[in-house]
Amino acid sequence: MGITRRELIAGTAGVVLVSSATRMAHATADPLPSWNEGAAKRAIVEFVRATTDHARPQFVPVAERIATFDQDGTLWVEQPIYSQVIYCLDRVPEVVKAHPELANAEPFKSVLAEGPRALARLPEADLFKLLEVTLTGMSVEEFQAQVQSWLERARDPRWKRRFTELTYQPMQEVLAFMRANGYKTYIVTGGGQDFVRVYAEKTYGIPPEQVAGSIGGTSYGYDKNGRPTLTKDPKLLLNDDHAGKPEGIHLMIGRRPRAAFGNSVGDQQMLEYTRAGDGARLAMLLLHDDAEREYAYGPAQGLRDSKVGTFPQALYDRAVAQGWPVISMKQDWRRIFSW
Amino acid sequence: MGITRRELIAGTAGVVLVSSATRMAHATADPLPSWNEGAAKRAIVEFVRATTDHARPQFVPVAERIATFDQDGTLWVEQPIYSQVIYCLDRVPEVVKAHPELANAEPFKSVLAEGPRALARLPEADLFKLLEVTLTGMSVEEFQAQVQSWLERARDPRWKRRFTELTYQPMQEVLAFMRANGYKTYIVTGGGQDFVRVYAEKTYGIPPEQVAGSIGGTSYGYDKNGRPTLTKDPKLLLNDDHAGKPEGIHLMIGRRPRAAFGNSVGDQQMLEYTRAGDGARLAMLLLHDDAEREYAYGPAQGLRDSKVGTFPQALYDRAVAQGWPVISMKQDWRRIFSW
Repeated sequence: MGITRRELIAGTAGVVLVSSATRMAHATADPLPSWNEGAAKRAIVEFVRATTDHARPQFVPVAERIATFDQDGTLWVEQPIYSQVIYCLDRVPEVVKAHPELANAEPFKSVLAEGPRALARLPEADLFKLLEVTLTGMSVEEFQAQVQSWLERARDPRWKRRFTELTYQPMQEVLAFMRANGYKTYIVTGGGQDFVRVYAEKTYGIPPEQVAGSIGGTSYGYDKNGRPTLTKDPKLLLNDDHAGKPEGIHLMIGRRPRAAFGNSVGDQQMLEYTRAGDGARLAMLLLHDDAEREYAYGPAQGLRDSKVGTFPQALYDRAVAQGWPVISMKQDWRRIFSW
Repeated sequence: MGITRRELIAGTAGVVLVSSATRMAHATADPLPSWNEGAAKRAIVEFVRATTDHARPQFVPVAERIATFDQDGTLWVEQPIYSQVIYCLDRVPEVVKAHPELANAEPFKSVLAEGPRALARLPEADLFKLLEVTLTGMSVEEFQAQVQSWLERARDPRWKRRFTELTYQPMQEVLAFMRANGYKTYIVTGGGQDFVRVYAEKTYGIPPEQVAGSIGGTSYGYDKNGRPTLTKDPKLLLNDDHAGKPEGIHLMIGRRPRAAFGNSVGDQQMLEYTRAGDGARLAMLLLHDDAEREYAYGPAQGLRDSKVGTFPQALYDRAVAQGWPVISMKQDWRRIFSW
């Protein structure tokens, strides 16, 4: 037992510091400081406490602690246009530079002339052409470098910030709080899995293997130096939206989530699927009702139809009827961003 | 600092115990006790030591520590027939009971009459029909229950053991050793992702989200009680073999592995892809050359052609040429199974 006096003292000091830190944490720490007190915050805190306390019937073993989060409109701003669509539009000049024959072909001609304004009147087939040319045909590494470079350069027009700065601070706290309690946090997004993976780790603390998104195929082959490489194909394996969300969750995770957060009709099936499991389950809808600090849309504007990035009154009514706690951005969030 | 005398003593005792346990572990513990000393064992231990030591240039941050393992023939026995194929054959009586009209249709008629012996002369289309009927059309939960029940009942004909007892003890030690050093261990298998997930956690300590296999689609819908459910579709999204292995790795993990283990031509691309990354990478091939304790096939038998579950001489030669360490089951493994 050759422990030295120095080790003994160091060890004892460690015990004192840990004890004291723990006691202080229990006494004072609020895991969700950007949230106002209310039903939404209580629902989250109570769910985590109940599912992590061995003594309670709602206890969930660590291996089963899976929480899924929609991204656009749930973890970061989705208005007025999804960031990934802006990325595709912004890529057009470089694509045309590499393929000058596209300069006079649609949709590239319109996008070059008008920028994002061209988007509203693009036929769906042209939109797919835009996605195909900007998101596929390159190696996985080239794509990652292109997205990374854009993220450093691009700014949101309203706040003049990087897109990765437009994450909601209250949701970042939920992610951190759940992880601190043994939950694996996943992004489950209609956006491209490879796109979101480029920044998810740095932006949300979520590693690439915990990003479930719309999945494009890749093809394995060899580059001109004979080096093995994966090329992004224009083949959609999974559209991770609506019914595709539970399907993508099964594909990527293989377990039903214990908690899920969303904000639009595209999240309805994920929330239903989550709630339909036995034991403790949490499904929450974020309502965008804060035109001043962010945007107001969906039921907050009285919209009754589904459109990109919104949820209709019917989904809101369903949430209320099924007891899914609704998060009001205006009422429940003390702040929107970290800055 | 209201620490009690009792806490102080408990803390101090803890320090002493930990110190002493750590010192003993360093002095005596062999992380791979079922391995004989030799180049293969050294390659694994040295790789793990080098990539987890901050002071060495090969150091790999924890987030990037990904290790992938083929299953059939690498983690457990694949001879004479893949376990999943036996499962499909064994399901036939129950399928025919539920659908009596299949009793006189092929391949069901032959399988009912001859069992596994029918397999050798089934045309490929009939094999797919067999897989479709036994692996799809039911809910995810029903499928899991069917596989679970079979695993408890079925026995390997040679050893009269459950299939989940036929895992290689030396490879179980590699999995545990890598995990103890911060590696996330993944199964990357040509077998069905949903099939392997049923037992991977209990059998290998690998959770469902770390099983990348051949992926079938699912369809989200509602059962007769209106409960959300996922039904397994006869649609193959990814054939996770050969080029499909690096494609599946990208899909499920989104990072290139640091280490990969395989045993057949179906693993060649995974091993190449792993080795082609920069920094420290380990790619190892397991050679089945132990007819007495397990099986001898592939180069050990002088086979020059690829067939199910083997690797041809060419792959073996390639491994040697590229410096992939080859594991000889006969030379390198002190024991094969845990029993």
